[in-house]
Amino acid sequence: MKDFRLYAITGEQFHPGRDMITVMEEAILGGVDMIQLRDKKSAKREVLQKAVALRELTRKHNVTFIVNDHIDVALAVEADGIHLGQDDLPLLIARKIVGDMMIIGISTHSIEEARLAEQEGADYIGVGPVFATKSKEDVVSPVSTSYVREVAREIRIPFVAIGGIKLHNVDQVLEAGASRICAISEIVGSRDVRGTCESFVGKIERATKAGTL
Amino acid sequence: MKDFRLYAITGEQFHPGRDMITVMEEAILGGVDMIQLRDKKSAKREVLQKAVALRELTRKHNVTFIVNDHIDVALAVEADGIHLGQDDLPLLIARKIVGDMMIIGISTHSIEEARLAEQEGADYIGVGPVFATKSKEDVVSPVSTSYVREVAREIRIPFVAIGGIKLHNVDQVLEAGASRICAISEIVGSRDVRGTCESFVGKIERATKAGTL
Repeated sequence: MKDFRLYAITGEQFHPGRDMITVMEEAILGGVDMIQLRDKKSAKREVLQKAVALRELTRKHNVTFIVNDHIDVALAVEADGIHLGQDDLPLLIARKIVGDMMIIGISTHSIEEARLAEQEGADYIGVGPVFATKSKEDVVSPVSTSYVREVAREIRIPFVAIGGIKLHNVDQVLEAGASRICAISEIVGSRDVRGTCESFVGKIERATKAGTL
Repeated sequence: MKDFRLYAITGEQFHPGRDMITVMEEAILGGVDMIQLRDKKSAKREVLQKAVALRELTRKHNVTFIVNDHIDVALAVEADGIHLGQDDLPLLIARKIVGDMMIIGISTHSIEEARLAEQEGADYIGVGPVFATKSKEDVVSPVSTSYVREVAREIRIPFVAIGGIKLHNVDQVLEAGASRICAISEIVGSRDVRGTCESFVGKIERATKAGTL
């Protein structure tokens, strides 16, 4: 898979009155290079409509497009991949359905889940929630930056830190070894989506350079 | 597709304290020859577990097994088909994903929807809700037996009447031209699931014989 630095997940509840595609395009212009459509509530046909629009947007900007949970929608719009939580379809079953060409990302909340995802062939894992978050309704307790350190030490596939990450606390996460950051509300709920993303990218770049010196 | 007469849809809320597989096996022993797993609320992994159990049960009894909405789950357990409502993925998109071997059933609430489903290659359609029902939360107004008559006159693919059909009113539906009946609460909520199904089948057989005389 193409590597990424800043991963934005849709969250329409954080930008009432603003169109999702407009918000996501601002995020892309600010440096987001991977986008996930996450909608566990709408009817499938509505999810499909959103996916069609995001597929068009991400193609235009050459950004990776991932669909959360809905494998059928991902197949229908030829998304680049799917993202699965621990309550979604298991990785091995999903892999049989989507084949080897599609990216599969897995949410993990412990080093055991991370190891299993790596063994089973995940293309990347989510690592979190690092901090407390209200973006998801059913999340587990925050895992703190110590889980990020554990994964950075041991896991060889790409991982992205997620969960309550804001501009004011992202430095701790980067310092713990993350080089890819995922955010929902801090990005799409920002008054200046593009500027917020630019600030995230700046921090990621500085941390990554510092790490390689 | 293999033809069918009595189609039961799961509805666990109608049999609290009783196991779904037990209830569905009683229904099969009473004459149900097609079963649909309908679960729009549970996490996908839980839906998968139910689908695995129902796939095993229906294989054992050589009964057709359909999954509502979740195309990924249907593919994962090799269900015989999927059933799509008007808010689920459109038929033509679903067909691309599942191919020609899988049955696709479509819920229709008007003759226009029935014609479109037939044109687009549905294997069967649902026709209803004939009567008022509380089994679904988002149903449209009852279409009455006049819609059943319309479909019986015009549509050439198999159709199954659905929605509020009970032993006490099924004769009207059969009289209107239906030869396949679908029920949820009347079957799975019955104190005598097997006996209820046997009564349905008896009524369907008598009506079908009368119709061919």
